[in-house]
Amino acid sequence: MLGSYLDNVREKSPLVHNITNYVTVNDVANAILAAGASPVMADDPQDAEEITRICSALNINIGTLNTRTIDAMFRAGRKAQELGHSLLLDPVGAGASSVRTNTALKLMKELRFDVIRGNASEIKTLVLGAGTTHGVDADKADSVSDDNLAFMAGFVKDFSRSTGAVIALTGAVDLVADSERCCVIRNGRPEMGRITGTGCMLSGVMAAFIAANPENVLEACASSVSMMGLAGEIAHSHLQEHEGNSTYRNRIIDAIYNMTGGILEGGARYEVL
Amino acid sequence: MLGSYLDNVREKSPLVHNITNYVTVNDVANAILAAGASPVMADDPQDAEEITRICSALNINIGTLNTRTIDAMFRAGRKAQELGHSLLLDPVGAGASSVRTNTALKLMKELRFDVIRGNASEIKTLVLGAGTTHGVDADKADSVSDDNLAFMAGFVKDFSRSTGAVIALTGAVDLVADSERCCVIRNGRPEMGRITGTGCMLSGVMAAFIAANPENVLEACASSVSMMGLAGEIAHSHLQEHEGNSTYRNRIIDAIYNMTGGILEGGARYEVL
Amino acid sequence: MLGSYLDNVREKSPLVHNITNYVTVNDVANAILAAGASPVMADDPQDAEEITRICSALNINIGTLNTRTIDAMFRAGRKAQELGHSLLLDPVGAGASSVRTNTALKLMKELRFDVIRGNASEIKTLVLGAGTTHGVDADKADSVSDDNLAFMAGFVKDFSRSTGAVIALTGAVDLVADSERCCVIRNGRPEMGRITGTGCMLSGVMAAFIAANPENVLEACASSVSMMGLAGEIAHSHLQEHEGNSTYRNRIIDAIYNMTGGILEGGARYEVL
Repeated sequence: MLGSYLDNVREKSPLVHNITNYVTVNDVANAILAAGASPVMADDPQDAEEITRICSALNINIGTLNTRTIDAMFRAGRKAQELGHSLLLDPVGAGASSVRTNTALKLMKELRFDVIRGNASEIKTLVLGAGTTHGVDADKADSVSDDNLAFMAGFVKDFSRSTGAVIALTGAVDLVADSERCCVIRNGRPEMGRITGTGCMLSGVMAAFIAANPENVLEACASSVSMMGLAGEIAHSHLQEHEGNSTYRNRIIDAIYNMTGGILEGGARYEVL
Repeated sequence: MLGSYLDNVREKSPLVHNITNYVTVNDVANAILAAGASPVMADDPQDAEEITRICSALNINIGTLNTRTIDAMFRAGRKAQELGHSLLLDPVGAGASSVRTNTALKLMKELRFDVIRGNASEIKTLVLGAGTTHGVDADKADSVSDDNLAFMAGFVKDFSRSTGAVIALTGAVDLVADSERCCVIRNGRPEMGRITGTGCMLSGVMAAFIAANPENVLEACASSVSMMGLAGEIAHSHLQEHEGNSTYRNRIIDAIYNMTGGILEGGARYEVL
Repeated sequence: MLGSYLDNVREKSPLVHNITNYVTVNDVANAILAAGASPVMADDPQDAEEITRICSALNINIGTLNTRTIDAMFRAGRKAQELGHSLLLDPVGAGASSVRTNTALKLMKELRFDVIRGNASEIKTLVLGAGTTHGVDADKADSVSDDNLAFMAGFVKDFSRSTGAVIALTGAVDLVADSERCCVIRNGRPEMGRITGTGCMLSGVMAAFIAANPENVLEACASSVSMMGLAGEIAHSHLQEHEGNSTYRNRIIDAIYNMTGGILEGGARYEVL
């Protein structure tokens, strides 16, 4: 069943607008292309608003935000909402600075996101209105484990209820929840944390998935999370001797490129709480 | 004959200034290095104007433009023109927003470009003063095929006549034309469209080719277009099982790195209309 | 002995803040991760100052600087100094424009850098207050060779004495000096010059090394320089037929990822003058 959401991405090839950071932007673009969708990037306020019109999803990623791009996020976000586009927030580094925390909170106040995707520290920051983050990585104290799984599932369901957004909290164990259901996804590899941008790539790809599956946002998000993790597993199995994180990054994007609905179906490991 | 233009790039190693987008900039730099030239990037208005002075070509790419970088494009462009440098415009996304369309048109009005390189939708937008673009990709309705080849060849020759620039309209079939002659180039692979930045890389490399061959701009452009397509063919032939668009990107740059005048000569597929 | 400085990076995993250029930023992030540390990037003035607080090193790289990011460099730099963080300057393109030269000189005047790392032309520019640079690459006239080794070693020692910073002048032969000692390091491959960003990656990694080894800045810098060169040698030995500069870049980062203290110890080639 999860495979069909990928099939829809490949069939519809949605155009995804990304206002994103300058660190991982190239990988985001290639990951979206690998999934069968098309990326476009703009971050001048007027240009971003105009470009949004021809897209079907907007992925707002606040890593390396600045005054100009924050303005672009709001203008493009309002336009996307007005046009009924899929809208995703990736609150990169929320909790690490007040600029990031406050921008994410203001975006959530003004816009109705379909999905909010972040690591445990970022999501916790958005819930509490403040937090601590190890840079752009999650604080170890915040991670999801079997010990706190029921609690964390309730936590993300509650946050989904209060925001109206599907919440994707990703890490060693991934949670994707609306107010009623929480998918617990166990795909992925720890080595993915040694590559910059796996979270950013996932957000871009996830925006394509929700644009291609607007009636099934929860399922589409879960499918994209599972696919990203599975791509990490497949890519890892193809690593040759002497290869490390840079080649691993390429192989993960390659694995998305070669993913099919059937492979995803067979490899997805998840349960619903 | 096309091979000699590459030989000149490797021999003269021109320094190419690029004011370009933040999505594909790293690949542009590595592609220019692969071709045997040197890249430099600046996009602060004053810095861009100053850096231009030590270069021999300026590649203006309007993807992810903003107020600051637009100012840099004009200042560096005027300086490059004053100094007689090679000047190339890549109107990324012209037709997709008025900011992009108008910036490209104003740049063309104020500067005399040696070459304008874009996809069919972008070039059509510049000719008509307005247009539609599927994000930064060409609209399918605009593509060059054997059915409309004679018409499109006339179209780019006319545009070259009115602008004084060599026009490189690239896609499944590539056209490179001045007012009298149109080279039809048939190198390349459809899979290149699944990588971000093949067009941007080509523009950077093309700027190096015209800087190294200022007396033969049409031929130098055709040579760079053919080389990029041939690199795509060679790279594709070296793809291993499980590899996808990310590794393909690396292999294309690698193929440029390993290209020789002789390989290019042997692999170029073109006719002149 | 050099290997132990790498071991400390892997053990302490310092968080390195990078205000850097948009050309090579992704490779810088992946190289820092490969070395066992964590990268974070911010370049909005307020955000950069705030993010600095949670880090233990700041790497200021002036490539593609602009008015906004220059402000961020000063604000983050002052904060880093106030907090006693490790502080590194990479004066990319100093000598190529007055904006870059003056920004580097002002940063040096206002901040006390632990390390300044650049190519020969950039370092010469900082010493003389003006200079010539082939874009972002060193002028050939400036390179270090066995003929001028004693002179250049004295030159960097003098510069270290006047600035209080360890000076890392990198090129075919690398010099790392404080006011008393100059390490001459002979690792590396000439092909590394055909990749964009090897200098930028080294600066990011070096910032992690000094943050993890604050009592041994000279040794930590020398260790990172030797490791980068050795990674270039190892990566080169793994290049397959048809591979070029793009894959070489990936393999260098991979080689850092797979580097151990023991491999570095065994492969380092240096003497102390």
